[in-house]
Amino acid sequence: MKIEAEWMRGGTSKCWVFEAGHLGEGNSLDSLLPRVFGSPDSRQIDGVGGATSTTSKAMILHRPDDEGIDVDFTFAQVGIEEAAVDWGSNCGNCSAVVGLYAIEKGWVVPTGDVTRIVTRNTNTGQVIIQRVATPAGALPIVPDAQMPGVPFPGYRVGLGFQDPAGKTTGALLPTGSATDTITAGGTRWTVSMVDAGAPVVIVRAEDLGLDPARYENWQAGVELQLDTLDQIRRQAAVRMGLAPTTAQAARAIPKLAIAAFPVADQAQPTDGSDINVMMLSMGRPHPALAITGSIALTLAARTPGTVLHHMTGGTQCAALKLRTPAGVLETWTEEKDGAVIVGVDRTARTIATTVIHLPEALGNAAEEALAGATR
Amino acid sequence: MKIEAEWMRGGTSKCWVFEAGHLGEGNSLDSLLPRVFGSPDSRQIDGVGGATSTTSKAMILHRPDDEGIDVDFTFAQVGIEEAAVDWGSNCGNCSAVVGLYAIEKGWVVPTGDVTRIVTRNTNTGQVIIQRVATPAGALPIVPDAQMPGVPFPGYRVGLGFQDPAGKTTGALLPTGSATDTITAGGTRWTVSMVDAGAPVVIVRAEDLGLDPARYENWQAGVELQLDTLDQIRRQAAVRMGLAPTTAQAARAIPKLAIAAFPVADQAQPTDGSDINVMMLSMGRPHPALAITGSIALTLAARTPGTVLHHMTGGTQCAALKLRTPAGVLETWTEEKDGAVIVGVDRTARTIATTVIHLPEALGNAAEEALAGATR
Repeated sequence: MKIEAEWMRGGTSKCWVFEAGHLGEGNSLDSLLPRVFGSPDSRQIDGVGGATSTTSKAMILHRPDDEGIDVDFTFAQVGIEEAAVDWGSNCGNCSAVVGLYAIEKGWVVPTGDVTRIVTRNTNTGQVIIQRVATPAGALPIVPDAQMPGVPFPGYRVGLGFQDPAGKTTGALLPTGSATDTITAGGTRWTVSMVDAGAPVVIVRAEDLGLDPARYENWQAGVELQLDTLDQIRRQAAVRMGLAPTTAQAARAIPKLAIAAFPVADQAQPTDGSDINVMMLSMGRPHPALAITGSIALTLAARTPGTVLHHMTGGTQCAALKLRTPAGVLETWTEEKDGAVIVGVDRTARTIATTVIHLPEALGNAAEEALAGATR
Repeated sequence: MKIEAEWMRGGTSKCWVFEAGHLGEGNSLDSLLPRVFGSPDSRQIDGVGGATSTTSKAMILHRPDDEGIDVDFTFAQVGIEEAAVDWGSNCGNCSAVVGLYAIEKGWVVPTGDVTRIVTRNTNTGQVIIQRVATPAGALPIVPDAQMPGVPFPGYRVGLGFQDPAGKTTGALLPTGSATDTITAGGTRWTVSMVDAGAPVVIVRAEDLGLDPARYENWQAGVELQLDTLDQIRRQAAVRMGLAPTTAQAARAIPKLAIAAFPVADQAQPTDGSDINVMMLSMGRPHPALAITGSIALTLAARTPGTVLHHMTGGTQCAALKLRTPAGVLETWTEEKDGAVIVGVDRTARTIATTVIHLPEALGNAAEEALAGATR
């Protein structure tokens, strides 16, 4: 069996991109994709996977009959040590390959200096309007757009999340309030809980005793309060309707963001950011900010009454700069025909056009390897 | 610029396989290959590299006019955090893709149940006779050969190193003696120094106080004596003519092997191995055994007077089983027309047939990224 695929970089991830029609009739993707990637194997040595979470990703593309949508796409996080696929969420970085793929394959004809591709993620139902720079109506021969975390240039792709609010809980403010009070660790915390891109609970850095002018010291301060922060996060899960009890709250959802208005000091200028942010991921401070998290923070900053709205003075600026340990991430917002579009820019590039070889006795081989690994 | 390449697994490595004629005229491979692989970048996120030493490897194949050789191949270890290529050695695992490539591309027509392909590594001058299983004169549709460290099957490839002795120093026994005495750490050590596949100095496990019947305890015992072992290794470098002084000895050469005849105990049967071995790599105990190292140990075991010859009782068996922490590795030896061929079996498989995309402004991009990384 041979399978056509494009290997593409989207943002800071590597993604294997398949057309749904190329994956064969009657194959279960839950067993086909792990075998293609070389799973189960911590090294993925016999497949196309890169043995890390950011390089074991697949996108499956499909052109729907729906006239308003150019491309439907499904994201698959392919297991590494397990022969399994997680279909539960989208990947913002991999999303950035979809518009470029559509242009390179001729699905969408470039028009003007920026070509607009309407894409829809089937994992979440989120419509993402992609804008690919096509000066003079064509992709530049040499891509030249840069982004943090990627040392080589790619094509600039804007990812605009259309009406992202409430995709998980049904409302931008799942509790009905822009701020709420949560008691944890013997203290009362003023937080905002928002659902846009992903559910996020936002805590003020000052309340944790973190100096807004000393962002470089935050991580050490946060490390000392991880237990309290996890209690806040679990209570927020219940308040947002994501879990029946704090004990049953998932580890990954909601995300928790610590935020402050940046105050300059002599040692550390603010880089012109609007908000300093530190996210927790799986209970630990994370150096970066997921695209979905940045969407939530951007809508929170625009919503009167939230802790972020207070910090930023109720900015309605088109652009918002979020400072993370890994660098400043800029988001943008548009309102058009009653819809709100919140977006970020990434770069993307095709690394290779490929035909993947698979032994025909696929099912057996994968099952035998799995049986061997669990013996 | 687009470059055709096959992505293949050879043994426990992933290798990008290029035909020399596909790499373009006038391109310096020292700058082209790092850019193709996405280096310099610890994640190789914008290229085909896998961000580990065993997945950042290239093979460049060429069909020589020389009638005795089917394929010349050059191995490139592509830097990850540095935009550099190391051409200094061959990779045994990647060597296993060459014969399979030659058959799949029709360079060699399969004949009989085992097809013989004569290959020559240009980094070292080593001729490797490859034997690929072709029952009924063809590659099986479904490969089914297994090997340790790889959870999925591949095609069986035998790698026969033809007359491997002395390729680095000019002689199998560079000191002229099968055993020598080295003083280090206040003790006199009886060692054997051999050059076949790679230069190796062999130390007896008993001399280090390691119990031959308790192989599972070796690593802890070795960790306590790393300084002494490095002194032995550095003195061996001088004795073998590889370095003028112990201070100037390279970290990677010679390799050091600790060996013992396996004595069974109740807790740990011997698996029928002929020798228990632990290699040091870059100063640390290594879980496996490089193919080149296994060639050296095999010839040492067949050479009267060496410490291995004593242990094995001077075996002239065709097969030798070497036990490592990662499992038992079997080598084989043939003598034919005055030549000695020492070999190991691997498996290999083509993962994907690809066309790699590269931005045209290659040189500039790579130079700019390099300048950025070192700024």
